[in-house]
Amino acid sequence: MIHEMNKISQQSLETKISRLKDGFLQAAYDHVAMEEPLEIRLDFLDGSARRQKSLSITMRTPGNDEELASGFLFTEGILQSPKDIIGISGCGPNSGAHHGKNIVKVRLTDQANIVWPKLERHFYATSSCGVCGKASLEALEVQGLKPIPRDGFRFDVKKISELPELLRSHQTVFDQTGGLHAAALFTDAGRVLAIREDVGRHNAVDKLIGSQFLAGGTPLSNALLFLSGRASFELVQKALVAGIPVIAAVGAPSSLAVELAKRFDVTLLGFVREGRFNIYHGDWRIINPLGGER
Amino acid sequence: MIHEMNKISQQSLETKISRLKDGFLQAAYDHVAMEEPLEIRLDFLDGSARRQKSLSITMRTPGNDEELASGFLFTEGILQSPKDIIGISGCGPNSGAHHGKNIVKVRLTDQANIVWPKLERHFYATSSCGVCGKASLEALEVQGLKPIPRDGFRFDVKKISELPELLRSHQTVFDQTGGLHAAALFTDAGRVLAIREDVGRHNAVDKLIGSQFLAGGTPLSNALLFLSGRASFELVQKALVAGIPVIAAVGAPSSLAVELAKRFDVTLLGFVREGRFNIYHGDWRIINPLGGER
Repeated sequence: MIHEMNKISQQSLETKISRLKDGFLQAAYDHVAMEEPLEIRLDFLDGSARRQKSLSITMRTPGNDEELASGFLFTEGILQSPKDIIGISGCGPNSGAHHGKNIVKVRLTDQANIVWPKLERHFYATSSCGVCGKASLEALEVQGLKPIPRDGFRFDVKKISELPELLRSHQTVFDQTGGLHAAALFTDAGRVLAIREDVGRHNAVDKLIGSQFLAGGTPLSNALLFLSGRASFELVQKALVAGIPVIAAVGAPSSLAVELAKRFDVTLLGFVREGRFNIYHGDWRIINPLGGER
Repeated sequence: MIHEMNKISQQSLETKISRLKDGFLQAAYDHVAMEEPLEIRLDFLDGSARRQKSLSITMRTPGNDEELASGFLFTEGILQSPKDIIGISGCGPNSGAHHGKNIVKVRLTDQANIVWPKLERHFYATSSCGVCGKASLEALEVQGLKPIPRDGFRFDVKKISELPELLRSHQTVFDQTGGLHAAALFTDAGRVLAIREDVGRHNAVDKLIGSQFLAGGTPLSNALLFLSGRASFELVQKALVAGIPVIAAVGAPSSLAVELAKRFDVTLLGFVREGRFNIYHGDWRIINPLGGER
């Protein structure tokens, strides 16, 4: 299936290309970010018998699949505690030169508290259609979301401008391929707690939060989430479920991301680059020793 | 629900922010790209009775919802002809100041040929889990994909470098918000056939292809698809279903995007910016009067 492509790591592949340079097309090699489907399955007690259910297929960069699966289950509100998980294992064939294990099975305890979502979302939900009239936005929201307390975590204005460079210095695959989104957690001292990369920005965030969830480190009440791209509704919601008080993004936020941040008191920063940024909500968490109009 | 946010168009919203500028935080206003959920429903004949089925909920920028719905149905392989569609209508309440119609219903003829996908994808598919062992990639692919013929459409190497500026000159919301993905179709003469913008890059492509599908303009055998961001497996697949021979992206392609392009002979260009680009497959469709090594 692969022609002239060599796997150089789990995260990137070398491929033969033609490159336009100085007005001429030249034969060259380029690294591209790995993208593979991952199916997430739950193995759980349903009444008196154990059962498996496929929850999601996502296009992701292979690696940290256990974190991705557990982060997805946590940030989508399905699981609340890592103690509900007995084990996470890959299954499925290694199909072809670079295809890894593309199914991950999450085995839950018999006592696991599973919150099935109110709404069957995305592609091919099989729910019958009731009356038109439900406010979709509310149906989309994870159940039991609570506002982030206003006291507690704060972040220094001067450290914010350093985040893009700190992220870049920790990124591994991005420089090679230019094709990955990155997400990172920072302490209020500006120290990197963890960083994850993926072709899908939701996956980068799921892997990142999943790594902390599995280690018992959630809620993340004392961390800033930094995103290499844009801030959407779904990313803000994932951070909110994990209790993260401050989100800073290199790109723009969407209207619904801003709305969710305002409703649940998440501090949301956008366009964090080249020494500039915008605060869309929650500026009281940004320590501003320089003064200036608030 | 909205505090200090004003709708200035269907595509963007004005919101009060704090901006770091010249080392000081200052009160300011910023435009953010609109993001709202859209539920796509099919109304079709099931045996002897008509039935409704919810197919997808996607986070999109409001506007061109009929194109989005029909483009989604076409590029996911569910519908093949615009004649199968009787009508497309919005339903649902206008909830709040800026919430539009967030449900779109696609009414199909009794004779409509609906191809239900092999695999229930993404979130909360309710398919029971069979044996681990199916190659997920093949299951993901739309049924009946055919390679793009090698003769026919070609594109001039010099015009490729002009695409980013041409796209920018036609974009409407991007300059205001910085938060939208754009997708455009170009003829081999470098003329813009259509352009669509959305917070979701899949949606921008669905709207774009949907606009041509509804007008009877598919397959798009004589068009180049230009993307403002990265090229993923799913975007290449959508273009392939629409018969588009050349895809050019400002960002990087993923490994699976390159693989799909090679398998089905789609010409795939990445990093089209600042007078440079890479050809990942199909360089015979790029006319290169300058010569140079091929």
